[in-house]
Amino acid sequence: MTDYQGDAAKSPLELFEKLTEQGDKVRSLKSAKAEKAEIDAAVQLLLKLKVDYKKVTGQDYKAGCPPSENSLGSENGLAADGNNDEGDDEVNPWSVSTNNAKGVDYDKLIVRFGSSKIDQALVDRIEKVTGRKPHHFLRRGIFFSHRDMHQVLDTYEKHKSFFLYTGRGPSSQAMHVGHLIPFIFTKWLQDVFDIPLVVQMTDDEKYLWKDLTLEQCHQFAMENAKDIIACGFDVNKTFIFSDLDYMGASPQFYRNVVKIQKHVTFNQVKGIFGFTDSDCIGKISFPAIQAAPSFSNSFPHIFGDKKDIQCLIPCAIDQDPYFRMTRDVAPRIGYPKPALLHSTFFPALQGAQTKMSASDANSSIFLTDTAKQIKNKINKYAFSGGKDTVEEHRKYGGNVDVDVSFMYLTFFLEDDEKLEKIRQDYTSGALLTGELKKTLIETLQPIIAEHQERRKQVTDETVKRFMTPRPLNFNL
Amino acid sequence: MTDYQGDAAKSPLELFEKLTEQGDKVRSLKSAKAEKAEIDAAVQLLLKLKVDYKKVTGQDYKAGCPPSENSLGSENGLAADGNNDEGDDEVNPWSVSTNNAKGVDYDKLIVRFGSSKIDQALVDRIEKVTGRKPHHFLRRGIFFSHRDMHQVLDTYEKHKSFFLYTGRGPSSQAMHVGHLIPFIFTKWLQDVFDIPLVVQMTDDEKYLWKDLTLEQCHQFAMENAKDIIACGFDVNKTFIFSDLDYMGASPQFYRNVVKIQKHVTFNQVKGIFGFTDSDCIGKISFPAIQAAPSFSNSFPHIFGDKKDIQCLIPCAIDQDPYFRMTRDVAPRIGYPKPALLHSTFFPALQGAQTKMSASDANSSIFLTDTAKQIKNKINKYAFSGGKDTVEEHRKYGGNVDVDVSFMYLTFFLEDDEKLEKIRQDYTSGALLTGELKKTLIETLQPIIAEHQERRKQVTDETVKRFMTPRPLNFNL
Repeated sequence: MTDYQGDAAKSPLELFEKLTEQGDKVRSLKSAKAEKAEIDAAVQLLLKLKVDYKKVTGQDYKAGCPPSENSLGSENGLAADGNNDEGDDEVNPWSVSTNNAKGVDYDKLIVRFGSSKIDQALVDRIEKVTGRKPHHFLRRGIFFSHRDMHQVLDTYEKHKSFFLYTGRGPSSQAMHVGHLIPFIFTKWLQDVFDIPLVVQMTDDEKYLWKDLTLEQCHQFAMENAKDIIACGFDVNKTFIFSDLDYMGASPQFYRNVVKIQKHVTFNQVKGIFGFTDSDCIGKISFPAIQAAPSFSNSFPHIFGDKKDIQCLIPCAIDQDPYFRMTRDVAPRIGYPKPALLHSTFFPALQGAQTKMSASDANSSIFLTDTAKQIKNKINKYAFSGGKDTVEEHRKYGGNVDVDVSFMYLTFFLEDDEKLEKIRQDYTSGALLTGELKKTLIETLQPIIAEHQERRKQVTDETVKRFMTPRPLNFNL
Repeated sequence: MTDYQGDAAKSPLELFEKLTEQGDKVRSLKSAKAEKAEIDAAVQLLLKLKVDYKKVTGQDYKAGCPPSENSLGSENGLAADGNNDEGDDEVNPWSVSTNNAKGVDYDKLIVRFGSSKIDQALVDRIEKVTGRKPHHFLRRGIFFSHRDMHQVLDTYEKHKSFFLYTGRGPSSQAMHVGHLIPFIFTKWLQDVFDIPLVVQMTDDEKYLWKDLTLEQCHQFAMENAKDIIACGFDVNKTFIFSDLDYMGASPQFYRNVVKIQKHVTFNQVKGIFGFTDSDCIGKISFPAIQAAPSFSNSFPHIFGDKKDIQCLIPCAIDQDPYFRMTRDVAPRIGYPKPALLHSTFFPALQGAQTKMSASDANSSIFLTDTAKQIKNKINKYAFSGGKDTVEEHRKYGGNVDVDVSFMYLTFFLEDDEKLEKIRQDYTSGALLTGELKKTLIETLQPIIAEHQERRKQVTDETVKRFMTPRPLNFNL
């Protein structure tokens, strides 16, 4: 049995293939009327493999049914949707919550979701491959998890291109600074790798989930597109699309949606997303629409009929369930799995355990806030890790791990040395909460003002250019 | 209680509205602290209405949730999908079966589905309104059931137009004569009412249900379109579309699909179509795609943004579940309910209780059959209602109710007198099975030959003209 060792450490799919092979072997031994001892040994191995398979995937082996990728992580006995009953953080596309003031435990999430940590080796490799200093979101672990990023870099080193895909659910006109995180990072990726980008506005999703009309959702998509464009994307390399428009403008996109829909059952989306029998059929089939842009031939105006161009998706970790499903389906319909870069969540002003809400103007800094509003909100609402009195603070110091102003600075203050000095001074008590907040205010005010200035330049004509299906500058 | 009589005979929706009203009344009496006797009487009526509601719909009343139309017919205690456990006929979009050699019991089906019989009064009215002799499919009860046809005629008499919608699931290249029935009748309706027609080719459905590639299904749609066009439709009044193409060519069509998908739950499609948790999400959401062409604004190139043009759907009765669902959703999204004309099924050569199969070349007459093949198939396979020997036949006569050749003649022999004479002579024994078959052969051979001749004239260019989204000649 030298060919069988350490299989419990194999991937579910590898195990599945081994099991299928072993099943075939048992059958052929039996039909060849081999010796009993030989058959018994083969059956023993088959049973052992089945036990390992169950341990790794949480599912029973079924011939002909490869494991779902969402079965990854089930080795810890956790539900497939990444949630559990142990009072852990809840993280899914519609809800993120934690009881910890420091926010979600991201290391645990990596284990539960079965993704990989972005470690120093990967950050160093990105620096080496691009020849550029890694973005501070990478240096500081704001993008903290990935799937197959090494494979993307392998491809790139062989002078083959890949493309970026990210998106936004336009549930209101108002976007806050947190919404910019994936776009700021995606723009950096576009710049350093010099590759095309597609941005999906899921206005159909928002119609299905929210009490909004189709017209409202579409209008929000158009308004949000302006904020996205204001992040500085290159119009020659970027295609932004509304689902409500693009579905009706691209037979190839719909073909991919139907392909995916044929290969995902209600049982699967129930397991991944927690849908119930009372959910509308639109919600139930929607995941295929968020999956489809992962495949290059969904965009024939950009990639022609090429279906094998690698996709890289930068997104917040709560979107991962969609792409676990996508990666499960991809090989079964002959497409490459998309790679992913996952970000942490941007905390609400009131603290990392509360949820930002677009309907609560005080829960975050909005992209439309004036300098004065920014100042007032931060001073009034930003949860402080400082002590109650100046005396205590000077004596015991503040706690940066729960201080929202400090967290915001990790997102928006690019200067590593300055950030480190603030951390030390605040922790020691040398820096008071008011002074820390002042630094954040002075950091955010120009960023928001400049965004507003750039957004003003974005005309309906500009939006139309970005949103027209057309060829992009793209070297294969 | 004079305002309460005969409510059990009311429609589910009327009952629902009455219940909602009565619930409001009880609440307002209670909050106004009305006299106990008055409150008790109101509550009594409320309870009685709830019992009636359950009786009529088979569902419990839930405030804010109007009844599904598929609850119609449940008054007989039958399952919502039109099937039951009493050994009755099975009729749904994927399966039609009966144990009766005469075929499905259509009168029972009308009661189960909650539709209305096409009676002589309706046939007479169609004759009066159109000034044309009713098609023999109407005269002979081949189109036997309807929903809201009187309303369509009311509209038409007010000089307002309506449009026709029918379709075909292109599961193979081969079409048989039975497939032509709805199209022959639809062409007649188009001619006598002078109205536009949309024809949906559900190539996406066939991809989802069958072991076929997208390319195969799309190719079948194109081939089948040629046979449909060969029925003689007016290119200036007819738009034929493949779902795989049109979904990606019309944002308005997709918008209607999403609207419908938002208003139908998995529970509902489970009840109507019998879907299970193991079905793929494509099947589960597909009914919305067959529903969408019922609404005029799905075709802006024909109807602009008009959403209130009445739709009339001629189809075989097995498609009714789709349109029960559509009629249930329509008022909730602000659209008129489509009207329907239902046909009986075209029997297989082997008998009315067996199913025709496109994969069994001997189960029907195909549109590609030669004169010789037609002759051989009818002589060899057409189930006979005649007696075993000539002597017996002369003495006891044949049974036209189970004789497939006679059934086929009711579909294809237009001359009423000749058909009646055949019925009498066959029943009396004057006409032998061989002679009956000869009449059918001589009737079908020229019909198929002429169809083949017309199909030859249909070029790819012609198909393209029919399938290009464009304005149609249409007087509102």
